[in-house]
Amino acid sequence: MTRERLYLYDTTLRDGQQTQGVQFSTAEKVQIARALDELGVDYIEGGWPGANPTDSEFFAETPSTRATMTAFGMTKRAGRSAENDEVLAAVTNAGTPAVCLVGKSHDFHVETALGITLDENLENIERSIAHLVAEGREALFDAEHFFDGYKANPGYALACARAALDAGARWVVLCDTNGGTLPSEVGRITAEVIAAGIPGDRLGIHTHNDTENAVANSLAAVEAGARQIQGTLNGLGERCGNANLVSLIGTLRLKEPFASMFELGVADDALPRLTRLSRLLDDILNRVPNKHAAYVGASAFAHKAGLHASAILKDPTTYEHVDPASVGNSRIVPMSNQAGQSNLRKRLVEAGIEVDRDDKRLARILDDIKDREDQGYSYDTAQASFELLARRALGLLPDFFEVKRYRVTVERRKNKRNRMVTLSEAVVVVKIGGEKMMSVSESMDESGNDQGPINALATALAKDLGPYQSYIDDMRLVDFKVRITAGGTEAVTRVIIDSEDSAGRRWSTVGVSPNIVDASFEALLDAITWKLVRDGAPA
Amino acid sequence: MTRERLYLYDTTLRDGQQTQGVQFSTAEKVQIARALDELGVDYIEGGWPGANPTDSEFFAETPSTRATMTAFGMTKRAGRSAENDEVLAAVTNAGTPAVCLVGKSHDFHVETALGITLDENLENIERSIAHLVAEGREALFDAEHFFDGYKANPGYALACARAALDAGARWVVLCDTNGGTLPSEVGRITAEVIAAGIPGDRLGIHTHNDTENAVANSLAAVEAGARQIQGTLNGLGERCGNANLVSLIGTLRLKEPFASMFELGVADDALPRLTRLSRLLDDILNRVPNKHAAYVGASAFAHKAGLHASAILKDPTTYEHVDPASVGNSRIVPMSNQAGQSNLRKRLVEAGIEVDRDDKRLARILDDIKDREDQGYSYDTAQASFELLARRALGLLPDFFEVKRYRVTVERRKNKRNRMVTLSEAVVVVKIGGEKMMSVSESMDESGNDQGPINALATALAKDLGPYQSYIDDMRLVDFKVRITAGGTEAVTRVIIDSEDSAGRRWSTVGVSPNIVDASFEALLDAITWKLVRDGAPA
Repeated sequence: MTRERLYLYDTTLRDGQQTQGVQFSTAEKVQIARALDELGVDYIEGGWPGANPTDSEFFAETPSTRATMTAFGMTKRAGRSAENDEVLAAVTNAGTPAVCLVGKSHDFHVETALGITLDENLENIERSIAHLVAEGREALFDAEHFFDGYKANPGYALACARAALDAGARWVVLCDTNGGTLPSEVGRITAEVIAAGIPGDRLGIHTHNDTENAVANSLAAVEAGARQIQGTLNGLGERCGNANLVSLIGTLRLKEPFASMFELGVADDALPRLTRLSRLLDDILNRVPNKHAAYVGASAFAHKAGLHASAILKDPTTYEHVDPASVGNSRIVPMSNQAGQSNLRKRLVEAGIEVDRDDKRLARILDDIKDREDQGYSYDTAQASFELLARRALGLLPDFFEVKRYRVTVERRKNKRNRMVTLSEAVVVVKIGGEKMMSVSESMDESGNDQGPINALATALAKDLGPYQSYIDDMRLVDFKVRITAGGTEAVTRVIIDSEDSAGRRWSTVGVSPNIVDASFEALLDAITWKLVRDGAPA
Repeated sequence: MTRERLYLYDTTLRDGQQTQGVQFSTAEKVQIARALDELGVDYIEGGWPGANPTDSEFFAETPSTRATMTAFGMTKRAGRSAENDEVLAAVTNAGTPAVCLVGKSHDFHVETALGITLDENLENIERSIAHLVAEGREALFDAEHFFDGYKANPGYALACARAALDAGARWVVLCDTNGGTLPSEVGRITAEVIAAGIPGDRLGIHTHNDTENAVANSLAAVEAGARQIQGTLNGLGERCGNANLVSLIGTLRLKEPFASMFELGVADDALPRLTRLSRLLDDILNRVPNKHAAYVGASAFAHKAGLHASAILKDPTTYEHVDPASVGNSRIVPMSNQAGQSNLRKRLVEAGIEVDRDDKRLARILDDIKDREDQGYSYDTAQASFELLARRALGLLPDFFEVKRYRVTVERRKNKRNRMVTLSEAVVVVKIGGEKMMSVSESMDESGNDQGPINALATALAKDLGPYQSYIDDMRLVDFKVRITAGGTEAVTRVIIDSEDSAGRRWSTVGVSPNIVDASFEALLDAITWKLVRDGAPA
């Protein structure tokens, strides 16, 4: 059986950005676009050129991608030509190979929200799409409120879709803009649209999660014949979010009847990137990843029930619908049992530490990790801190130096020119061998602006480490993430620091404390210690 | 048209408790059971008597409910009678009016996991259910792995269901235990089961969210004829969770065809309790509620896109599929750089500030917001800071006081008992009228543990504000979120602070700076200033 091509259209950078509290920087947009491209989506909707400075900046230097880069906009307004609509011009001027325009398809919205005639709206659709085609672009039409519109006035909704297709649109996308349509209705209406003569391989589906059915609605449309799905990473999007492309990709690639029916742009070897991609977005948004997310959640393959856990050890298919490794995720079974220990051994080997299968210290390390995770630590990303914890328990961690004390001060006051300025200063006292070393630092960037207490502390700590100084000179702090998390009953601060050295190595460390400075200092210390261990500094 | 009865079965207290990290106390179980009963679910599954101390304790003093209290257990084991199975005895001894027993219906599991014959399993089902019926209980049978079992061996899966029904079970519940079945398949198999002679009004559906389709799967089974839905509050449950009863109740009560087809135990006047009930569970679990949850999320009716926001102002049905008030939720029209002037005016009106439609200052405020959002500010959530920004631009913000300087110190060193401890101290100098006030504070919790520099600063700032002191005495800082907004060397820190007062008001403020202390201080100042404005403090 030949598999039909099914297209994935990502709108994380546009509709995803409609989420309350989400505002990507241009650099973040580029980073996300690259990761989407590596995964293998077919279209990347980068934003609305002209709508805001970030989107305009992104399109001024669009990253080159295998995926079709797409600019979003709206159909021209009534009373002017497509050529003379400056909102549309900003969109086409972005120069992307594809352009997606949203337009009305619900009579009520044409008359109430736009206040124009039904014919004027048809003309706006037709002329705008024709204009894109004349400019040599691939044109897509997002038919806003299509399902509500179809229920109210099926003839008019279909006329809007036809106007776009007849003008040369590659795709007409049926949008459930308000997210209120349920799966059977999406399936039925999509089938009726196809029966009315609009080919399924030119139909897309765009759903929202307002009834928690965005994924099911997308699948229902595909089962009815639509061949493009629009969605976002982790279901980001306005209100309750858009269809979650991460869940959809898992299902479309791994579950029948879809896996046998369709060919996707997401290749076999790209699928295990799914979990990392999902977490990348959360990292950028500084959000706690949803542990219970389908396929990619940290708990998606966690088996707490005793009966399930023991069956899993006999045969994972007893309680798992897919193999966690297929999407780059992993199984979690209760820490205390045998499987937990073999997982741990595997991680230790990855860090270059060999431990016997029956070493009693494995259980102790597991207990340690569990205790610390209860306090708010997280070793999923902070691989370097995990390694130090294990080394400490195994007696493989030298005492390089001891921090006797530190003090950091932040002061805000008027300077000589009567302007308010902020100054940070840090003092660190360490003991190396028998010797005490004291360093002081303030932290400024090139323009003389204060960079805050954590930077001052990092600079002071790295300023004079005596015999170890040469080992850390090429280290730099490249990322710093702060999260307030619950440790037991109290809120604590978790700091994760990413460091890099001149060899291009990058490592993450974690610190936890009610005090953000303390948490940061702990992560800084781990970062330095890991570097000393890895480079074989003498104790 | 007579509406058919559709039954809701809540398993938050049993299957919900299988979630990683969830362990209800007995008191919490009672609290949740009461709230579920007020909402109007038909069955409350309280736990597995005998499986753990909490569940046994809960059943020792089960709260009296209108809903049918149900104990959960498993069918008797092979080689002993139902009367002599002590695991089953613990369940029946709980004395609940209904008992739900899980048993196998997938031949592979019978032979692999249980290691017994297919006939022995049928006998276990039949004898266990007959035993419950003989004891005068309402009996339910959870057919584990039913869908996978049906696909592998339909005859045997059906025989298991029939064995339970013939023995007198009120309900046979088709369980998608591994969560891997997709909606069309659930619909098709449920229809086939009914066609095979098992009445729909004795069929229940129990789904999991491993493909993000648990809600859709439940709806598909109901459309095919099943008349009981099992689920949990907020979709709590092992791995990716169970079907979310909150979303299902919203849809079943408010959306067609369900609203006209079915009668639920959830009464008209109970539906607006839905949002509060959902948040109650998060409160008990000490979790941050999912803002994007269908129907009940804080952002479920938040309209960020400028085009949407202006249409919403004309007619809410343009971008809302149901009225937020119907489920006890409310609409949010947040500020963002994508919002237009009408959105801005609407926000100002909500803050008690009337501005003419053609006031030139509206455009200036929008520019201001855009500029500041480019610097890293975010006014979507920080409504109070937005309000202050607007008031300042409109000349409506009194100068209550001026901060002349502050200093905060964090010191880590050994205490008298030779233990490393951390101390934070803050000094704040403000000028009120002509008078200078200087306050100093350190920040400790009840156990004498340092709470960090931000807390110290907040305490010092709120310690002596002279004539304004009485206005802020009842304020407290309830949440504190930190985000690094741009990577690399230009990283800035964004701090969002949530404050609360004794009137139960809650407001959010934002601060941005390369220095986390500075950013926090800015947000703190806004929090206090907003309170002074709202309470009408004299300038």
